[in-house]
Amino acid sequence: MRELGEFALIERINRHRVQPSSVFLGPGDDAAVVAAPDGRFVVTTDMLVQNRHFRLDWSSPRDIGRKAIAQNAADVVAMGAVPTAFVVGLGLPGDTPVAVVDGLADGMWEEAARAGGGLAGGDLVRGEELIISVTAFGDLRGRPPITRSGAREGDTVAVLGRLGWSGAGLAVLGAGHLGSEAADFAEVLAAHRVPQPPYAQMLDTPHTRAEEPATHGVARLTAMTDISDGLLADLGHIADASGVGIDLDSGALGDPALDAIAALLDADATQWILTGGEDHAFVGTWSSTDAIARGWTPIGRVFAGHGVTVDGVSRRGSGGWESFLGADSANAEDAR
Amino acid sequence: MRELGEFALIERINRHRVQPSSVFLGPGDDAAVVAAPDGRFVVTTDMLVQNRHFRLDWSSPRDIGRKAIAQNAADVVAMGAVPTAFVVGLGLPGDTPVAVVDGLADGMWEEAARAGGGLAGGDLVRGEELIISVTAFGDLRGRPPITRSGAREGDTVAVLGRLGWSGAGLAVLGAGHLGSEAADFAEVLAAHRVPQPPYAQMLDTPHTRAEEPATHGVARLTAMTDISDGLLADLGHIADASGVGIDLDSGALGDPALDAIAALLDADATQWILTGGEDHAFVGTWSSTDAIARGWTPIGRVFAGHGVTVDGVSRRGSGGWESFLGADSANAEDAR
Repeated sequence: MRELGEFALIERINRHRVQPSSVFLGPGDDAAVVAAPDGRFVVTTDMLVQNRHFRLDWSSPRDIGRKAIAQNAADVVAMGAVPTAFVVGLGLPGDTPVAVVDGLADGMWEEAARAGGGLAGGDLVRGEELIISVTAFGDLRGRPPITRSGAREGDTVAVLGRLGWSGAGLAVLGAGHLGSEAADFAEVLAAHRVPQPPYAQMLDTPHTRAEEPATHGVARLTAMTDISDGLLADLGHIADASGVGIDLDSGALGDPALDAIAALLDADATQWILTGGEDHAFVGTWSSTDAIARGWTPIGRVFAGHGVTVDGVSRRGSGGWESFLGADSANAEDAR
Repeated sequence: MRELGEFALIERINRHRVQPSSVFLGPGDDAAVVAAPDGRFVVTTDMLVQNRHFRLDWSSPRDIGRKAIAQNAADVVAMGAVPTAFVVGLGLPGDTPVAVVDGLADGMWEEAARAGGGLAGGDLVRGEELIISVTAFGDLRGRPPITRSGAREGDTVAVLGRLGWSGAGLAVLGAGHLGSEAADFAEVLAAHRVPQPPYAQMLDTPHTRAEEPATHGVARLTAMTDISDGLLADLGHIADASGVGIDLDSGALGDPALDAIAALLDADATQWILTGGEDHAFVGTWSSTDAIARGWTPIGRVFAGHGVTVDGVSRRGSGGWESFLGADSANAEDAR
């Protein structure tokens, strides 16, 4: 790293990359220029810190690069927007092997392509820890954003994508099963290392807003978020922002594949499903139970009230991911 | 910090802030929504690391927040774009006093307002070091971006803003004059702590592009950058990108105020002017010497060739800021 220098390294990262048509001007000038066809753009940013959000002994640099892009792309898609571009700030210890940077960059480009955007620019600095700061952009295609505040009493809660798989993978790693990589665990380990938000399926979902005239027989998506902190925590954000309560049906939340893994680890699959973050599935509220889009699984109901319950019962310590908290979340933080 | 938790801290940072009209949806959802009136947006990102890019014993948190925004806003303006919004990732050690976060946030909002944008969103994580990752956006108002690659033989090089003041302030701090804060040094210390890019003056500059028909008697800005790494280094980027050489006139570069400070420190003001970064003045190439815009000072000439010279002589070790290099730039890095 030290031998190459910043400019040579940037040159190396950007070499042979093909920008999508949404990036009008890529890296190499004071700033990049990105398309915003509908006159607005969606923007979100996440910072990942080594040994807190990822571990180089648990994931390859390529996996970490993919994950960093995926969690930001999921936020863009959770607004109902199509990803267009990403910019990345990298803080690197001076002794970082160039292969690590290459792997990160390859993973980022790979996931950016999967989500539909390109890496339009970035910054490279030296630091004590490996830090990845991603900012992602998307285009709303003329539609209003799908915020967290549109859920209404009577709406159906439904999910698109997997729940608890990343949490199960984390539990496998935490239990020391890294070396074996037993076939039983391979899928949840992969899910933890590289989340697979169903971007394309979400963007194909018909989702007119509540303000628009209802199409007969087609449910509308009234609120949405991606599951980054855990199902209960993220639905809590929707409930709070919308001024409603949400009740989940435990019978709809089971996953036999996770039950099998939980049995091997003597763990509780329900806990992974309710509080495990980082799967970046999409959870939304729909204006009716009829004809919600294909691929979405109904898991609960919006009621007049507040908070999130399961089968009518509030769960204490709903958990989920929050930085900086003291004793309460220390275990969750240490485990990541 | 630890007592407050991430969500309470984010709430605290965003409380009572007024978003500009360019921010359609601010913090609090999966992503923000920002205006891009001309169907494109300019984007740039910079990461600042404690004790490398700033020091809490040399600058107040408010100054550091202003500087973090200013250096990104200058990149946006250097493309010819009007700043619209910023997003910020903050990595904070667990023992960071809340007052430091408050100061950073106040400084960021203050400089964002000066540049013309608002803080549309961000992320807050715990890390070993204080890290500030800023991404800035701007609108081109229907014009082509002013890149680094448009300089042509015969163009006049001119600068808007101060050169060497931040470098002089750094030298004052490095010489241990922090405590005294002598009146002699006050202005350059302030310049080092908070750069003052002349955003408004730059954005008022008439700058039609070379591709457009020339207006008789009005010079056109053909290439531009802001001075972040040092005059020679940043003009080197223009020379390289444009495939030309640039020669500076030393007689046009003097600054009596810096000479006076250099005499007190037994230092060389010319070195600050040529290689000192972080003033974020704007340097551009103009299509003629006649009627270049008010406020701009001619300092040199573009010639057919390559590299940057002063009075026709190449300066070795032109310096400037580059991360990761080994022995060569170790002093510069340590000093920052």
